[in-house]
Amino acid sequence: MPISLHQASIPLFVRGLKNLASLLEKGAAHAAENGVDPSELIEARLAPDMLALAAQVQRTSDTAKLSGERLSGIEAPKMPDDETTFPQLQERITKTIAYLESLPVADVDAGEGRTITLNFGPMKPSFSGADYLFGFALPNFYFHVVTAHDILRHKGVAIGKRDYLGAVA
Amino acid sequence: MPISLHQASIPLFVRGLKNLASLLEKGAAHAAENGVDPSELIEARLAPDMLALAAQVQRTSDTAKLSGERLSGIEAPKMPDDETTFPQLQERITKTIAYLESLPVADVDAGEGRTITLNFGPMKPSFSGADYLFGFALPNFYFHVVTAHDILRHKGVAIGKRDYLGAVA
Repeated sequence: MPISLHQASIPLFVRGLKNLASLLEKGAAHAAENGVDPSELIEARLAPDMLALAAQVQRTSDTAKLSGERLSGIEAPKMPDDETTFPQLQERITKTIAYLESLPVADVDAGEGRTITLNFGPMKPSFSGADYLFGFALPNFYFHVVTAHDILRHKGVAIGKRDYLGAVA
Repeated sequence: MPISLHQASIPLFVRGLKNLASLLEKGAAHAAENGVDPSELIEARLAPDMLALAAQVQRTSDTAKLSGERLSGIEAPKMPDDETTFPQLQERITKTIAYLESLPVADVDAGEGRTITLNFGPMKPSFSGADYLFGFALPNFYFHVVTAHDILRHKGVAIGKRDYLGAVA
């Protein structure tokens, strides 16, 4: 049975975002339990010139909603990247999921017939919907979810791959 | 145009493994240039109870080849997890890619009709090929590639998301 573009994209983003929300909940609980200022986690990064946790969450949201927009042709809500607290990051995730879940399956599936062009300054590569999804969108999405996990884990939050994967059964 | 199970799996693993090989090359070059013992990178981890770089590479290889095996029904080569140097890790990646590229497209596509059962001790969840791929194999695979990237980045190797994504155009 062939796979549809929707099946290979939107549920993966929604699931990854829900698991990211759980990771952030554990981060917030860790801060509260240990008397740590939540901003110490939210501003944490793995290298001085790498994005901090808040930005990793924002990029996760962007990658998911821009992918939804590019595949479906239905404009995604703009979000100004002004989140500085755990509740604000959760709200962003909730809004991103709501947009993704609002996309009709048929519109996302139609993305296979669309040419998607990215704008990297001088380079403007074009892709079919599936090539864009598999070569760019999914690896990019997981980059930010996993790095958010890795930042929290590095800061001592009691999470692991099971939290990142979510319930598998 | 519908997507085939092969299209959504094997090329993503191969590409991720090739990009991981590039990241490790930059890690090895960093060690040589800075007079750092390579084992300082190979044994590095982001938290005391998290897997080190070598194990992240081994798990990346395992996830890819076990996914190939479960989808295609063609047994993957056993690898004993004894790599302790950059050249040995590169060899493991090369062997993993060779196995994945040897899988006939039709055999992998036939995985959609197979029931894949995982063994988590008391829990033995079953999946269709696509549910296994999207709900478990891909997120798991990217977890280890990204964490390998994050470990090297955390240790000061001059890499970034562009190296992780590889050439997109």
